[in-house]
Amino acid sequence: MGRWEPDARGRLEQAALALYGERGFEQTTVAEIAARAGLTERTFFRHFADKREVLFAGAGSLQDLLVSTLDSTPDSAAPIDAIAAALAAAGARLQERREYARQRQTVIAANAELQERELIKLASLSAALADTLRRRGVTDPAASLAAEAGIAVFRIAFELWINDQRDLPQLIRESLDELKAVTAGE
Amino acid sequence: MGRWEPDARGRLEQAALALYGERGFEQTTVAEIAARAGLTERTFFRHFADKREVLFAGAGSLQDLLVSTLDSTPDSAAPIDAIAAALAAAGARLQERREYARQRQTVIAANAELQERELIKLASLSAALADTLRRRGVTDPAASLAAEAGIAVFRIAFELWINDQRDLPQLIRESLDELKAVTAGE
Repeated sequence: MGRWEPDARGRLEQAALALYGERGFEQTTVAEIAARAGLTERTFFRHFADKREVLFAGAGSLQDLLVSTLDSTPDSAAPIDAIAAALAAAGARLQERREYARQRQTVIAANAELQERELIKLASLSAALADTLRRRGVTDPAASLAAEAGIAVFRIAFELWINDQRDLPQLIRESLDELKAVTAGE
Repeated sequence: MGRWEPDARGRLEQAALALYGERGFEQTTVAEIAARAGLTERTFFRHFADKREVLFAGAGSLQDLLVSTLDSTPDSAAPIDAIAAALAAAGARLQERREYARQRQTVIAANAELQERELIKLASLSAALADTLRRRGVTDPAASLAAEAGIAVFRIAFELWINDQRDLPQLIRESLDELKAVTAGE
């Protein structure tokens, strides 16, 4: 293998997930991840700040996708419909990486610190959606509630998806319909 | 002051909150909290495992109140109405401690670690509500969604309450109505 490292980032990600699954997150070192990927530690640190970031590096682009989709919905759309459009876009992207998402979820479910980090990530996504709605003229508490409801729908659909054959965008639509029925008192 | 320490727990709580507010949570030691309360460190540790627990010791009884109220609603109540009853009970209890709640919130807002702990507490409350609904025969995802929606309403009403003259139970009712309007597409 030459100096050029094709898809170094993807290889590091795969190696890390495999090792976290085999040995546990705590027991895995950056040196082992780099070795498994056939790369150096130096290359690892060019792509990730630490071994935890391998699992959370996607959060920024997921947030960008949610916010840009929300922002591109017509101003006339009801807040919950604008949120639904954003979740559908995020769901479609994650759907393409189902196997990765499953492996990642297994690692996170086994580690309390990673679960906390995941909660913080979801809270950040909710705050970003609420900010975007406010920028579009939705007042509070409607903006916060629509964002929180959207993230709750996303999280619950995601959990179903991990153990289910259905597609994530479909599960998001079904969970949102279920939330509508629940809040309507059904 | 004699060996008998009237309301040692309450005094420690007040001393801790005052010091966290004055110096910051990180900068305050257990020795300082005990001294401010006119008590010994030994007494502190009879009541709290560490200085963080002073801020989170109430979570258990809040969860008990939510779960027992939810459990005592008629089986015929719609899940969201059962959740609303539980939130009303929790709101009424917190209302009695408004000044404490405000001080506590100021301390938590100033410290990332405490904010994370608060997120975990809310996630635990949501899980406990969902478990209780499932025990009462509500299926998933309705049980999880009703619980998550309830905790979102609670959190947002709580934030309003901290900076508002209205009562928490009233703000909880208004936020729930707002969530219903939002999910109905209004």
